Amino acid sequence: MSSAPAHEPAHEPATAELAVSTVIFALHAEPSSELPSLWLPLVRRTREPFEGQWALPGGWLPVDEELGKAAARTLNETTGLTPKYLEQLYTFGALDRSPGRRVVSVVYWALVQSDEAARAAEGENVRWFPADDLPELAFDHNLIVDYALWRLRTKLEYSRIAHAFLGETFTLAQLREVHEAVLQRPIDPANFRRTIEASKTVIATDEYLAGTPHRPPRLYRFDSTVHSANGDPADLGPLGRATPGKAS
Amino acid sequence: MSSAPAHEPAHEPATAELAVSTVIFALHAEPSSELPSLWLPLVRRTREPFEGQWALPGGWLPVDEELGKAAARTLNETTGLTPKYLEQLYTFGALDRSPGRRVVSVVYWALVQSDEAARAAEGENVRWFPADDLPELAFDHNLIVDYALWRLRTKLEYSRIAHAFLGETFTLAQLREVHEAVLQRPIDPANFRRTIEASKTVIATDEYLAGTPHRPPRLYRFDSTVHSANGDPADLGPLGRATPGKAS
Repeated sequence: MSSAPAHEPAHEPATAELAVSTVIFALHAEPSSELPSLWLPLVRRTREPFEGQWALPGGWLPVDEELGKAAARTLNETTGLTPKYLEQLYTFGALDRSPGRRVVSVVYWALVQSDEAARAAEGENVRWFPADDLPELAFDHNLIVDYALWRLRTKLEYSRIAHAFLGETFTLAQLREVHEAVLQRPIDPANFRRTIEASKTVIATDEYLAGTPHRPPRLYRFDSTVHSANGDPADLGPLGRATPGKAS
Repeated sequence: MSSAPAHEPAHEPATAELAVSTVIFALHAEPSSELPSLWLPLVRRTREPFEGQWALPGGWLPVDEELGKAAARTLNETTGLTPKYLEQLYTFGALDRSPGRRVVSVVYWALVQSDEAARAAEGENVRWFPADDLPELAFDHNLIVDYALWRLRTKLEYSRIAHAFLGETFTLAQLREVHEAVLQRPIDPANFRRTIEASKTVIATDEYLAGTPHRPPRLYRFDSTVHSANGDPADLGPLGRATPGKAS
């Protein structure tokens, strides 16, 4: 017997349907809370299945659209958000994730700065929710968010996460607040300063935070030789040349 | 205007077809070469498109089969390999990757030990190739292998890579050889020992390598509190509970 060749149908091609979804995290400070926390935009479903429940922004993959472009387009159509870069997170294909049909969803994600999140549309059917306190979402979207949160908290170095949430320059206190928000626990400022300085991922500038009359804190920037998360196509290695997940 | 709801078709569901492929890396020492190097199994295509060219093991996704199970099954059918764990690598969906039709491929990967690779089938239509010196493959499979190599060399900590290629216990020289093979450059033994000891990822055992009469080298094992690559469902975080990529 000869081996079955690669990519030859042993039966009719699959009839699983392809969709894309996006998880967009932003930092958001509630007046009632000490630490800022991670929030994400959700879209209310207006049809079955899961009518009335909240779901990640997304939609079907058109046969003539790149995966990353479909994710960016459907995100923009529902929320008005246009992150400069979407990264592929994971593809979800469990048999029972959508009732009555097989849907495989390629999920993209991005971290956006608060000012971009503030510009996003909100309305009856689009709302931001705290990532750690979500209602029961449509499909397996709670699992998708859990996985994205886990990736954010365990897989990325702290400096790379923080890079995506902050501007070009920042104080060490601002950087520490990002870490506190992602990890959801207070961090000792002196320990944090020592750890960051030892990591050599940030560089002190000659500038100081404006608008602080007494002992203004120094501004830092990230060492550009260290890769950033979400914002650097080079972080995809060979795929960066083809930029398959590039949003625009 | 109201926002478009999530996951509602604005047109007919996509007709992109879904396939799975696998990249399996093993270490292989050629007598002519000083360092062992990374090899992977390929399958020769016996039909158009790309008839006669080599391709990654894979096939269509049946509508009733989990993604990881389809990857494991098609890998086994073509190569006889059954890695204990396949990890999802990336989903490739460029418009032009398959002539005349839209095919989206969910790619899985695994690192296997040499003894498992040696048990794999080889024949006219299945053969192992050096990962750094491949012929022109079918579809975008050269790009997929390049991406897998880049992930292996830049994204995983060395200890986690080595864990997947070695047995339960190993000498520091064996561990160094794995690193040399992946990075394809010699590493100074004394520097390597210092780096590994400082990383605290390996633990010295009370055992020594058998069959070495004079000053047998000590055996080490990995610290099990450090995550392993390819072999630990817990490494998928929340997904590990559902083990969506589990091969069996």
